[in-house]
Amino acid sequence: MKTIILPPEDKWDALCTRPAILKSELDDVVRKIINDVKTTGDKALIDYSERFDKIKLSTFIVSQEEIAGSVQRVSEKLKSAIDIARKNIEKFHAAQLKQEPPIQTIPGVMCWRKNVPVEKVGLYIPGGSAPLFSTILMLAIPAKIAGCRDIVICTPPDKAGNVNPLILYTAGILGITKIYKTGGAQAIAAMAYGTQTIPKVFKIFGPGNQYVTKAKELIQQDGISIDLPAGPSEVLVIADKSANPEFIAADLISQAEHGTDSQVVLLTDSKELLEKTCSEIELQLKALPRKEIASEALDNSLFILLDSLDDCIEFSNRYAPEHLIINTSDFQLLSEKIINAGSVFLGKYSCESAGDYASGTNHTLPTNGFARSYSGVSTESFIRKISFQEVSGKGIKNIGPAIELMAEAELLRAHKNAVTVRLKYLENVRN
Amino acid sequence: MKTIILPPEDKWDALCTRPAILKSELDDVVRKIINDVKTTGDKALIDYSERFDKIKLSTFIVSQEEIAGSVQRVSEKLKSAIDIARKNIEKFHAAQLKQEPPIQTIPGVMCWRKNVPVEKVGLYIPGGSAPLFSTILMLAIPAKIAGCRDIVICTPPDKAGNVNPLILYTAGILGITKIYKTGGAQAIAAMAYGTQTIPKVFKIFGPGNQYVTKAKELIQQDGISIDLPAGPSEVLVIADKSANPEFIAADLISQAEHGTDSQVVLLTDSKELLEKTCSEIELQLKALPRKEIASEALDNSLFILLDSLDDCIEFSNRYAPEHLIINTSDFQLLSEKIINAGSVFLGKYSCESAGDYASGTNHTLPTNGFARSYSGVSTESFIRKISFQEVSGKGIKNIGPAIELMAEAELLRAHKNAVTVRLKYLENVRN
Repeated sequence: MKTIILPPEDKWDALCTRPAILKSELDDVVRKIINDVKTTGDKALIDYSERFDKIKLSTFIVSQEEIAGSVQRVSEKLKSAIDIARKNIEKFHAAQLKQEPPIQTIPGVMCWRKNVPVEKVGLYIPGGSAPLFSTILMLAIPAKIAGCRDIVICTPPDKAGNVNPLILYTAGILGITKIYKTGGAQAIAAMAYGTQTIPKVFKIFGPGNQYVTKAKELIQQDGISIDLPAGPSEVLVIADKSANPEFIAADLISQAEHGTDSQVVLLTDSKELLEKTCSEIELQLKALPRKEIASEALDNSLFILLDSLDDCIEFSNRYAPEHLIINTSDFQLLSEKIINAGSVFLGKYSCESAGDYASGTNHTLPTNGFARSYSGVSTESFIRKISFQEVSGKGIKNIGPAIELMAEAELLRAHKNAVTVRLKYLENVRN
Repeated sequence: MKTIILPPEDKWDALCTRPAILKSELDDVVRKIINDVKTTGDKALIDYSERFDKIKLSTFIVSQEEIAGSVQRVSEKLKSAIDIARKNIEKFHAAQLKQEPPIQTIPGVMCWRKNVPVEKVGLYIPGGSAPLFSTILMLAIPAKIAGCRDIVICTPPDKAGNVNPLILYTAGILGITKIYKTGGAQAIAAMAYGTQTIPKVFKIFGPGNQYVTKAKELIQQDGISIDLPAGPSEVLVIADKSANPEFIAADLISQAEHGTDSQVVLLTDSKELLEKTCSEIELQLKALPRKEIASEALDNSLFILLDSLDDCIEFSNRYAPEHLIINTSDFQLLSEKIINAGSVFLGKYSCESAGDYASGTNHTLPTNGFARSYSGVSTESFIRKISFQEVSGKGIKNIGPAIELMAEAELLRAHKNAVTVRLKYLENVRN
């Protein structure tokens, strides 16, 4: 843990800088994978699965029997837990879409936007050590609410060729039937360009390792859109002397266990709280199964004492954290000053894991300072807003002369003429 | 003009394919420009301006005198026209932002999203042959409505070192004072990374040539976001026998005059309308100043006769046009079936140039089929929606056990523990 006492303001920007992510290294490897999938489709997927997943699959398609069979393999208690999370996420995400009423901008000119779902979306769910079924809730629920017609899931198989039952169960209760056993950059390429088995989609969501991330970056150049650029997960906690050091330590460690590259920051105006939190961390780490990972992430973490809580907010706005916990007595007042963050947790009981699983907010959020210009995933991530305008005869008379003048000033005569022919026609109709 | 009579449905996808955009050629050139700006800042801008704009500038800053002086150089008639457009765009874009009320997802858990403007945005306005002051209206008005704190404009100077007065006038009436005389990839790099003179921004908007487009693609890898991926402008017109061929021809040509790579498509169920439109185009082209450009674009255009208007809509949804004009007698009914488009123009008086300038909708739209997953620019492009959650003691009791179970199933014990310490605390408080 790096403890920094009252750093001068001109040092803040340097403290807000994340470790550089090496980007170009993987470029060639991932380009080759993408190209192989583009040119040989399923064959490339089979080959890469044999190489990376150590399994020779005869089909990538998860059968309806496999999905149905998962139901018996999840405990009733966990099913109830997933149900609580699902309902809260549904409630929050269902409230996000409103059709806007048409606006008459000038008599005879009506303009509006219509929400239309992205027809085909792909969700990537990593396999590996932990089955991230919570990510299915976070991506498939808004996709369903938006009304996406085709929802495809790709997830890598284990060495026996199976997908974790928790992933299948969660997809199953949400009615998703197109699930494919393929992972890594090849899965992203399959969804971006389509193969004999896997349908092409228009937008790809979901977390992944560096190969997945690079593939998502590259396929954008062909017009397939993605949820968010990726970076290591982060939490920034602002706490004052009223905070319980045990809670703060638990929140910081819960971020640190994600990976050795996790970013963990504590800002406080209380030296006492800072010291107590450090001691508490040592204590809690001992009991943690993933303590090696967490310890390494904590070695790079920042524990910063600042002059005031206002300074903490100012620092946090410069940092633009993915997760921001405000555990102070006046959290309401402070929360109004937040400009840059992904998701904010207010008060002593709002731990980050609440938002990771079950409060109802989405856990797919901008990392790496991207919160300065990106929002997290929401139902809106699964729709487009198409503009419409209906201009009547009266309408074109009201705006036509202005369009003619502006088009002429931009040297676009045919733009002008599209109005002129209509105004002339109306003139003739009247006479 | 390629006239295609009743193509079988299995040929539609091929007809919907845009000409491939060569992407990698410029890579090295633009990477070098970006790197020069990153490392030498203003010096690189001065050098490139001398090389590309043929002018050695002592400063890039547009002075307040230059902005004020532009007022006298714009005619009163054009000022009134700009005023009409401005008011309509303001009206439509002001209606787009609504604060959402908090949602209680479960007793004790409140979740909401807060609209927060992107603090710093950069608008690129091309110079070249035509002064695209309408693009300033389309980008700066929603930026102002969103409440962006810093709005920066970069635009290339002419050979005398000046910026077109129409651009300065339009920026001036919108209260934008940070205008810089620099263009091309170097301007994008300057806004992305900052120089001694030009402030760094978090999101960059605006059209441009292939260098600008490539630079916008590359800076995204450093987390600076952009409005939309770029492609040549497009219009698709659906017309039936009720349509006036003179209007249709004018609309198709107005798109074609944008550039030789413009995409122009007519779909109709009436052979008569198709033939009459072709004749009308020949007629109108003769009077057009930019007829060489328009003719070349029209050579690549598609005029397709289909079986029915429903087929036309189905084809259009596959094509996903930037601009879609529906000039038929039952346009209301057809418009409900639109799934993929940027902006839609309904009825015989709704020409595309209405939306380009003054109806109130935005003219920065997804091209190249990107409408399948992207929306056009709106006020929402200038904000982020930050999630908030406030969990009370009662709230964490309601969702805590579910979080503990789910975190454990994902093998994230510290995530579980952040809840456990709180539930234990509440248990002790009660006792």
